[in-house]
Amino acid sequence: MFIEKLSRLNHTKGYLCLGLDPVQELMPTHYRGIKGVETFCIEMIQASAPYICAIKANLAYFEQFGADGIFMLERIKAHIPENTLWILDAKRGDIGNTSERYAKALFNILQADAVTVNPYLGKDSVEPFLNHSEKGVFLLALTSNQGAYDFQFHGNPPLWQQVILQSKNWGHSNLGYVIGATKTEELKIARALADEKPFLIPGIGAQGGSLEHAVRDGLQGGKVAGLINVARGILYASVETDYLTAAAKAAKQWYDEIQSYLEK
Amino acid sequence: MFIEKLSRLNHTKGYLCLGLDPVQELMPTHYRGIKGVETFCIEMIQASAPYICAIKANLAYFEQFGADGIFMLERIKAHIPENTLWILDAKRGDIGNTSERYAKALFNILQADAVTVNPYLGKDSVEPFLNHSEKGVFLLALTSNQGAYDFQFHGNPPLWQQVILQSKNWGHSNLGYVIGATKTEELKIARALADEKPFLIPGIGAQGGSLEHAVRDGLQGGKVAGLINVARGILYASVETDYLTAAAKAAKQWYDEIQSYLEK
Repeated sequence: MFIEKLSRLNHTKGYLCLGLDPVQELMPTHYRGIKGVETFCIEMIQASAPYICAIKANLAYFEQFGADGIFMLERIKAHIPENTLWILDAKRGDIGNTSERYAKALFNILQADAVTVNPYLGKDSVEPFLNHSEKGVFLLALTSNQGAYDFQFHGNPPLWQQVILQSKNWGHSNLGYVIGATKTEELKIARALADEKPFLIPGIGAQGGSLEHAVRDGLQGGKVAGLINVARGILYASVETDYLTAAAKAAKQWYDEIQSYLEK
Repeated sequence: MFIEKLSRLNHTKGYLCLGLDPVQELMPTHYRGIKGVETFCIEMIQASAPYICAIKANLAYFEQFGADGIFMLERIKAHIPENTLWILDAKRGDIGNTSERYAKALFNILQADAVTVNPYLGKDSVEPFLNHSEKGVFLLALTSNQGAYDFQFHGNPPLWQQVILQSKNWGHSNLGYVIGATKTEELKIARALADEKPFLIPGIGAQGGSLEHAVRDGLQGGKVAGLINVARGILYASVETDYLTAAAKAAKQWYDEIQSYLEK
């Protein structure tokens, strides 16, 4: 079961999730072409391995290379260390029989331990993912971008709260939520609404979210399972020749800082 | 420009869009494996070609085969007849820099003329698609499934209306909406709200939506550009040996029925 596995890893390996969003323009220049992107991803996984409990790959950064990007993702999966979760940030969601195909693609073909799902199409679009009961589903509730204010705050309660309120009663124990760290006040509200369901928290680092709030409010100081995602803050810690040791050092710093905010 | 092209094709080739959602279990049994799915898709395109102005492929049905499914989609694209639009039903949407990668994957690699996009993450998640100004974007407003009632009716005005009200003022002329034909009353409201923006209307046939309402209300009897999507009603018109002539006949019937509801 995903949630038990996540909870166990949180206690042994912490809460840091490496966001694998490879942007060629930000990498050291010797990583050329699609092969360079693959090598960069694998080296970043190896550099940060001691400090992370999960790796979250965003599908868009691989699909932009077409079918070759999907093959790349399959090969990268083979480099995920033991006791590290493989999360695919796909934000899919479609009518029921179609969502089941996406679930197959992500869980069976690409072997994800958990995925992100978009709630717009409602329960019957999310359940095909949840029905893979040994896997995890992080439903988008409140995202980290500015555009979150366009529709996620619509209505009363705001839509993002309604998503949590309704979906937590769908009766699936493998459900969690994406809550952006950039919305500090809402993180507390989300935690109060979501019972003990785990959060996947992006928006730390380059996007400006507070790590302290993410840990103290989003993870209740480590009392609930969850993941703090950091991408650019590790991947592009340096573009000089020391970029791998810089990535490892950055991952260790994020890990240490998260630990420092956990309640003893 | 996509909208001009769609409008022109509506007048010369009608409004019928073939939904390419290949389900192996529903095909004649001699289509075996992934190669069989590809052959089936190509033969269905050829059979329905005289009666359709667009083909909408749902990505999930191809991604379920992994990278091979993406290659298949690229090969199928080569069989799209001239003067037929290639629409990728992807329902993507992510934070801005990530959406731009999806746009690249769909428009540049897979050569879509238009795509479907999920509005949950707001304006900055949709604009990277809209910025491909020669391409079309159909934003999900009201979907055809039962789960549409979970969140799309949240708030006042209901979320799906709010999506139209806000996005139509984003200033992009290449924007349209997905409005499910299964919601008959809402189709009229949507048409009144959306100015003259085109609708992509699924939910006809197997899902039970009314074709007459879709044409009279959704397309204003042909006074605005748009697409009526039919998938199972053509693809699986017969599983006997006459399945290809049955598909052609079904496509012609849908085409004729649409034409009969157009205002003269």
